[in-house]
Amino acid sequence: MKILKNQTLDQLLEQVDRQTDQQANQPEVESTVAGIISNVIKNGDDALREYSKKFDKVELTDLRVPQSDIDAAYKNADQDLIDALNLAKNNIISYHKKEIQNGFVDAEQPGVVRGEKITPLAAVGLYVPGGTAAYPSSILMNVIPAKLAGVSKIVMVTPPQKDGIGQAVLTAAKIAGIDEVYQVGGAQAIAALAYGTESIPRVDKITGPGNIFVAVAKKQVFGQVDIDMIAGPSEIGVIADDSANPREVAADLLSQAEHDKLARPMMVTPSEKFAEAVSDQIDEQLKTLPRKEIAGASVQNKGFIAVTDTLDEAFTVMNAISPEHLEIELEDAMQYLNQIKNAGSVFLGFNASEPVGDYVAGPNHILPTGGTARFFSPLGVSDFVKRIQFVTYSKAALKKEEKAITTLARVEGLEAHARAVESRFKD
Amino acid sequence: MKILKNQTLDQLLEQVDRQTDQQANQPEVESTVAGIISNVIKNGDDALREYSKKFDKVELTDLRVPQSDIDAAYKNADQDLIDALNLAKNNIISYHKKEIQNGFVDAEQPGVVRGEKITPLAAVGLYVPGGTAAYPSSILMNVIPAKLAGVSKIVMVTPPQKDGIGQAVLTAAKIAGIDEVYQVGGAQAIAALAYGTESIPRVDKITGPGNIFVAVAKKQVFGQVDIDMIAGPSEIGVIADDSANPREVAADLLSQAEHDKLARPMMVTPSEKFAEAVSDQIDEQLKTLPRKEIAGASVQNKGFIAVTDTLDEAFTVMNAISPEHLEIELEDAMQYLNQIKNAGSVFLGFNASEPVGDYVAGPNHILPTGGTARFFSPLGVSDFVKRIQFVTYSKAALKKEEKAITTLARVEGLEAHARAVESRFKD
Repeated sequence: MKILKNQTLDQLLEQVDRQTDQQANQPEVESTVAGIISNVIKNGDDALREYSKKFDKVELTDLRVPQSDIDAAYKNADQDLIDALNLAKNNIISYHKKEIQNGFVDAEQPGVVRGEKITPLAAVGLYVPGGTAAYPSSILMNVIPAKLAGVSKIVMVTPPQKDGIGQAVLTAAKIAGIDEVYQVGGAQAIAALAYGTESIPRVDKITGPGNIFVAVAKKQVFGQVDIDMIAGPSEIGVIADDSANPREVAADLLSQAEHDKLARPMMVTPSEKFAEAVSDQIDEQLKTLPRKEIAGASVQNKGFIAVTDTLDEAFTVMNAISPEHLEIELEDAMQYLNQIKNAGSVFLGFNASEPVGDYVAGPNHILPTGGTARFFSPLGVSDFVKRIQFVTYSKAALKKEEKAITTLARVEGLEAHARAVESRFKD
Repeated sequence: MKILKNQTLDQLLEQVDRQTDQQANQPEVESTVAGIISNVIKNGDDALREYSKKFDKVELTDLRVPQSDIDAAYKNADQDLIDALNLAKNNIISYHKKEIQNGFVDAEQPGVVRGEKITPLAAVGLYVPGGTAAYPSSILMNVIPAKLAGVSKIVMVTPPQKDGIGQAVLTAAKIAGIDEVYQVGGAQAIAALAYGTESIPRVDKITGPGNIFVAVAKKQVFGQVDIDMIAGPSEIGVIADDSANPREVAADLLSQAEHDKLARPMMVTPSEKFAEAVSDQIDEQLKTLPRKEIAGASVQNKGFIAVTDTLDEAFTVMNAISPEHLEIELEDAMQYLNQIKNAGSVFLGFNASEPVGDYVAGPNHILPTGGTARFFSPLGVSDFVKRIQFVTYSKAALKKEEKAITTLARVEGLEAHARAVESRFKD
């Protein structure tokens, strides 16, 4: 892997500064997607069937996957898979339960009650990609926070497959507790969830990853519904020194590299010796990886190891990167929590290998990418609720604030605002 | 105001169902804005000066408003304005303090620590419109939650004016505690905040309303930075019965109608008699309003009163509308809190006139519009933080979950994920 060494901190920072070019507009995709969305709004299920035939080469009568198929997949699933999904489910529940917010009420001023009511979204749609990117684990990561938030209607859409929806996906849907699954994919599925069709209910928020058409469709319907985020290629950042094991660190870097040729495996270390040891281990381990072509391209084109003068500088560089996943492979790793300013999910210490978070630890694995951890958060319970503010005033309490209200209203040129309050004191 | 009566619930619901047509694409604006953003990325401050000259007819050397101008505005401000802004500030602080989240740590399983760290965004940009839409109250509503969240850098941008930035705006900036104010507006200001220029720092999130160019620019830079929301015209929904005072309700409806010809004043009531009384009062009160042309157009084209058979149906209709502001003009209004499913900010009872929330009550007045209260929340402290997940594992704890991780990894075809965990047990 490329090693950036003998550089100043500023030089390193300049190299890692992202232009987030994955956001670049693709006008052709934009207009194709806009056309698909209009067609689904106009023609509903007929449009969905037409696109399934055209894009997925599958002719459908019923869009909905029968409950009996879901039940059968679960019944036939390998017990190890069921046990693993249940372990993951329990840990995801116990973690996300702690994210539940309660709102508040405030009665500190005479005659005034103010508060905030946390209300679940009524309906949520989950997009599950087809083919090799259909991850059962992601279904749990999407559905469990929504259920804990109190969302009562959760529907799943996934592209139709010639030989039926993947068994592991249906098993995960069963364990997650989704009972409405529709076979429809691409931009047309996003349009259906955003606007509703005869078969598919309109939802309030769409979550889950997808290809470029799905991503562009999500961005186009944003505002009509809420969306989770536009996910880019997977990333792992590692901060390590000589106390870490190069074999383990290399294995962790490769675990994200195997996702995608555009995935970014990144390490920052104050030790040039450790940098070289990890680089050697990556070359070695790549040889026997089934997905070595993908992982190799990721390492070659997107990966790097930056060598800094000090550990503090390593944190500065990593915070500028703002990685999706961050491993702290240092002794007493927890003590560095304060120095971490930007990251989606952090893995502290030598045994917190990143895949533990992909599957069973409990924190969400749907995370901000492309440097957006500067401002976005992991998917969580708060994504599936909204806050509703409320206030009530006694007449005496309103009187006390009348002058401030009418003063501000008139400074802003909004006379009707002032009169609305004054109308309470006209009798 | 138009009265919808003698209709079934379904007929009413159909009429209020929004197609949120304000989201409609405007390709010309989109491409103009895209061009402005590219130019600002490329030419920085020079591009900003060029646009100020072209669009605002102001030639600038320094983009930053000198601290002495801000101090002078405050010093010369009317004491009533300062008192009103300070009252508002204190109430906004005391309300939003209660929104502050603390994250959590969980050590329920041996050898495993999991948690969530709440971290403020590093830098936030606030857009304040020019001209008559420059509301000092909105500066407090934007800045105070950001400060409470712990954001250390807050910068404000506002279009240059031939005779300098408005004194009330600068006074509010002083009281809110902003010291970085730049005179730049439109899409170019949004681009500057998203990408940074020589003078203007790059921020992590942009909040605040603006015209169509600002709104489109915010949508285009979304992902490069976070944004608050795309605000549409103001809305007020009132649920009332004969126990309410038609004069007061009419005054409240007009307070939002005066904002914009496209503002939506809406009432739902089970009483036809009350509907007519409010409609009469609106006609009467309109006559003497300074902004009667705007308010009248809003009432005429966008306003309506829907008459339902029952109060329960009134709530059903209003939840379908999902108004930005909602007044419950009923006796014992607080008891209806459970029936409110979709609204930005709720005003309960006869004295909670909506303008109390615009100015002094303390809840935020930057609220979801256009039916987006179905899934969006008022601006709050949580908009200015991100959650960072973390986890640490002992070797023994990892061993216990090894099988589940490797099972799931292999079902998903991700061998390197399995090997990363197994590499911990190779010595």
